[in-house]
Amino acid sequence: MLETLKKQVLEANQALTAYKLVTFTWGNVSGYSKDEDLVVIKPSGISYDKMTVDDLVVVDLEGEVVEGKLNPSSDTPTHLEIYRSFPGAGGVVHTHSPWATSWAQAGLDIPCLGTTQGDYFYGSIPCTRKMTREEIRGAYELDTGRVIVETFNERKLNPNEIPGVLVHSHAPFSWGKDAADAIHNAVVLEEVAKMALYTYQLNPTVSSMDQELLDKHYLRKHGENAYYGQK
Amino acid sequence: MLETLKKQVLEANQALTAYKLVTFTWGNVSGYSKDEDLVVIKPSGISYDKMTVDDLVVVDLEGEVVEGKLNPSSDTPTHLEIYRSFPGAGGVVHTHSPWATSWAQAGLDIPCLGTTQGDYFYGSIPCTRKMTREEIRGAYELDTGRVIVETFNERKLNPNEIPGVLVHSHAPFSWGKDAADAIHNAVVLEEVAKMALYTYQLNPTVSSMDQELLDKHYLRKHGENAYYGQK
Amino acid sequence: MLETLKKQVLEANQALTAYKLVTFTWGNVSGYSKDEDLVVIKPSGISYDKMTVDDLVVVDLEGEVVEGKLNPSSDTPTHLEIYRSFPGAGGVVHTHSPWATSWAQAGLDIPCLGTTQGDYFYGSIPCTRKMTREEIRGAYELDTGRVIVETFNERKLNPNEIPGVLVHSHAPFSWGKDAADAIHNAVVLEEVAKMALYTYQLNPTVSSMDQELLDKHYLRKHGENAYYGQK
Amino acid sequence: MLETLKKQVLEANQALTAYKLVTFTWGNVSGYSKDEDLVVIKPSGISYDKMTVDDLVVVDLEGEVVEGKLNPSSDTPTHLEIYRSFPGAGGVVHTHSPWATSWAQAGLDIPCLGTTQGDYFYGSIPCTRKMTREEIRGAYELDTGRVIVETFNERKLNPNEIPGVLVHSHAPFSWGKDAADAIHNAVVLEEVAKMALYTYQLNPTVSSMDQELLDKHYLRKHGENAYYGQK
Repeated sequence: MLETLKKQVLEANQALTAYKLVTFTWGNVSGYSKDEDLVVIKPSGISYDKMTVDDLVVVDLEGEVVEGKLNPSSDTPTHLEIYRSFPGAGGVVHTHSPWATSWAQAGLDIPCLGTTQGDYFYGSIPCTRKMTREEIRGAYELDTGRVIVETFNERKLNPNEIPGVLVHSHAPFSWGKDAADAIHNAVVLEEVAKMALYTYQLNPTVSSMDQELLDKHYLRKHGENAYYGQK
Repeated sequence: MLETLKKQVLEANQALTAYKLVTFTWGNVSGYSKDEDLVVIKPSGISYDKMTVDDLVVVDLEGEVVEGKLNPSSDTPTHLEIYRSFPGAGGVVHTHSPWATSWAQAGLDIPCLGTTQGDYFYGSIPCTRKMTREEIRGAYELDTGRVIVETFNERKLNPNEIPGVLVHSHAPFSWGKDAADAIHNAVVLEEVAKMALYTYQLNPTVSSMDQELLDKHYLRKHGENAYYGQK
Repeated sequence: MLETLKKQVLEANQALTAYKLVTFTWGNVSGYSKDEDLVVIKPSGISYDKMTVDDLVVVDLEGEVVEGKLNPSSDTPTHLEIYRSFPGAGGVVHTHSPWATSWAQAGLDIPCLGTTQGDYFYGSIPCTRKMTREEIRGAYELDTGRVIVETFNERKLNPNEIPGVLVHSHAPFSWGKDAADAIHNAVVLEEVAKMALYTYQLNPTVSSMDQELLDKHYLRKHGENAYYGQK
Repeated sequence: MLETLKKQVLEANQALTAYKLVTFTWGNVSGYSKDEDLVVIKPSGISYDKMTVDDLVVVDLEGEVVEGKLNPSSDTPTHLEIYRSFPGAGGVVHTHSPWATSWAQAGLDIPCLGTTQGDYFYGSIPCTRKMTREEIRGAYELDTGRVIVETFNERKLNPNEIPGVLVHSHAPFSWGKDAADAIHNAVVLEEVAKMALYTYQLNPTVSSMDQELLDKHYLRKHGENAYYGQK
């Protein structure tokens, strides 16, 4: 069942350590099959190097386990809310990568300060509001997803153009067209988080890059007029 | 004698280098056997890669060497004071890991700024007061342990919920239910020390995370209502 | 065709990852043959570890593809403008290496604060002005090259003595007598960018190193009176 | 000739890369034989991984080459001045390690902020004054050594107790009883330079550690009452 997707999700989870995005088991990746309308996700608390395809858990979009002997990641409801609300998402990554997490702890958006970010994110990477007592006490992981979606709706952001977010006092989530693409965006998010902090240390009054330059860089890699890479 | 414990302690000492917590021999791990009421600890000034099970030193809780040809770590009296005073401690780790040591040198607690810390430490990681001239001149390493215990007593902290401390002008100690768990907490301590510094650089007026969110994260991993990981 | 140059350019592109100057494919190297008046450059969006000599693209100084099945790097027009304007350049490197990119994002020159920089760069490493809307909308990559050249002309800098530049809101370019030398200068640029940031954190009012010391260090390694290394 | 010393010096030079103290060939190590009154030193501009025992250069304390086909390091006169003036020095290391170099570029002593430094350096690690125009134009590398010695003399520092120095606008030198010990001190210097910068970022008004604690740590590892390590 879903063997190709499972293989992709396993490789993406293992990529978390290869890209040094995680300490211990502090991260998880899932992938979504539009055809089957099912999600494959990491089991909770299992280390990446011991994980096999058979350890992965298959859940439907409501969170019911369809296949798998282990508990799915405790963050599963957050992943599912992202899949339900962001139709372009075919993979979701959650990490506590240190630079991005530091911005989340600071409660600040990562402003778009240069073309490195502009090549992948069409503007600032938003930080959510704090969650309320009711959200935390209630369906916490689901509400984490809801506050992510709320952030994109209220700010009128397109999740296909801004494929990542910081959850306040917590850590980043990113997504992409599949699990590998979501990992790619998680790596970019961490790298630009680092450079944005350095940039502020050098120039505390720096402002976002010019919109014209952002348009140029984002659009030369995305959309119908893209000309980066091979056809 | 204590072969299983020795193996655990040897592996935990070797993990210090694997996790990049130490330069040269700047760290030591011990493990405690409740059944035998004995402690196995690293010998002083021996490099981790050359150390064998036979180099480890067995001492009783008063510091008498029960087995071993080498001198135990000069920090042994600090370890023993922790075992005598914190009944939940089955392993103790001391390092000079750079981020945590920088907080110790700054004489500051590491505040709990996000869920990464909250998953393991139920609040701030305390920094002790400075030691007095008398404590330094006297039984220095024992007094280091005493000032750690005093810090927990005076602030009414539970060492099972806050499994680490910064010794002022010195470096961190951490503990856990066994040597491997103490190493785990030493890695977390170093990682959150790094992120807390970055967070302050981004937002110098940041305050601790909401208590509600801290409760949620700590208690979903610890205690009878925990639901993280596999049963 | 140009087999030796292609081999040099391939090795220099692979050196980008060996020296940790790039994430993913965020960098490119080219080399110029004066005899043939042709440039060999990395193809666009291809990963370094899969690249072979046959993937490299040969272009003339006007950007016409002379050999190669793949698209050349989208930054090719910038490389070519550097070759056309800086006669000493036999190799060009572009990266988004994090420390240098942070200075570019901050819009600041890297001042010459010590002999490490002075051994390779005869003064500050300049940051260009921002590009105009017209330049960005127009021949963007060519105009990036033009703004680099303008920076050197207006400030009367010798590109053989200052073999690198920061493009505002973007990232560094460096060059050298061949592709390997350009990589060498890219590594130096990144290393001095890091140390200059640390230096400012320690001493925000630090000024550039004494001109006398800069002369001494630069000239003991460059020019007719050099005495560093072997004859 | 001096085969044992050459082997030590070769290994110490190779340790520069193992400990990540150098980029390219930005560092050199020498060793001194009291019996022969000769110094073995790295040749200038040769990479560490290609260097063999036969490439090393033997010089006398006046700098005359006694054996070797290659030019000795351009920093040789600095090394020799240290050997002539600091009788306890049997090995000298020069690097441009980034953290220590940043302090040198900032023109600041590294204050003794904790026991990590206090275990090896009995107080602050001094930064020299700037060199004068005459010193730079004259016998520059020799004068670099002289300004190091002047710093220790004027501040009444014991080079056996403070086995390292920062040369203003340049980089660190360290020494020890032999080449390996000098490398050891170079590693410590770099590590404490990093932690001291972090400490100041956390607490800009931090002061040096208490003298009593410094005495305790330095003297439990050095001198006749030392009790660290094995007898």
